[in-house]
Amino acid sequence: MHSLLDLVLIDLYDCDHGRLLDAELIRGGMIQAAELMGAEVVGESFYTFEPWGVSGTVTIAESHLALHTWPEYNFAAITFETCGTRMNHRKAFDFLVDFFCAKNPQITFHKRGFMSTADADLKYKQDVG
Amino acid sequence: MHSLLDLVLIDLYDCDHGRLLDAELIRGGMIQAAELMGAEVVGESFYTFEPWGVSGTVTIAESHLALHTWPEYNFAAITFETCGTRMNHRKAFDFLVDFFCAKNPQITFHKRGFMSTADADLKYKQDVG
Repeated sequence: MHSLLDLVLIDLYDCDHGRLLDAELIRGGMIQAAELMGAEVVGESFYTFEPWGVSGTVTIAESHLALHTWPEYNFAAITFETCGTRMNHRKAFDFLVDFFCAKNPQITFHKRGFMSTADADLKYKQDVG
Repeated sequence: MHSLLDLVLIDLYDCDHGRLLDAELIRGGMIQAAELMGAEVVGESFYTFEPWGVSGTVTIAESHLALHTWPEYNFAAITFETCGTRMNHRKAFDFLVDFFCAKNPQITFHKRGFMSTADADLKYKQDVG
């Protein structure tokens, strides 16, 4: 069995309050994190909520990054979903911990999209000849 | 302890091949899934890869939905991240299973962003007065 996607969940507690408010600054930080990871950015969408809070996604050739901030709790939840084996998740994580001045960062690594190599080969041949 | 985010991972195996190729059709399907869930759509970003494959995100007032397709494996990976208690994940899941004609759909439910209610109340008061 192999998996098609790596799922990395980053919960950043005790962040700098001001950093969680500014969508434009955060947009730049998330794109920089994607580039540090070794990803190719192909799209993005960021949104600022009233009275506060930012949500955003960065689409990459290798899947996506997502972020949601709760300034009232000094908290940010960040997700990486990536395919391939060349992504440097740790480098992007270290950058984001510094970027948000997170005093209590947590990271967990998961896999999804499991498929037997034989099944994948068979389907690939059936579909694309 | 309470959690700020629900994380729903949907792996759709044995989908209709043609459905996984068309970014514009998929964009409409993902937005419809968000609305069926009870979410408010505030942004989106979809991208078609060469020679095939679609990646997309739908930003919602309650966080986001993301999708990645592997037409060569007849596979789609979909993620819901939502806050609040009113989201109907099951309704959106049922719609997407039908939409992609997935013969082998899998869904798992997770929580993230854990915080003690007392801590959250304290931080909220410190930050916003």
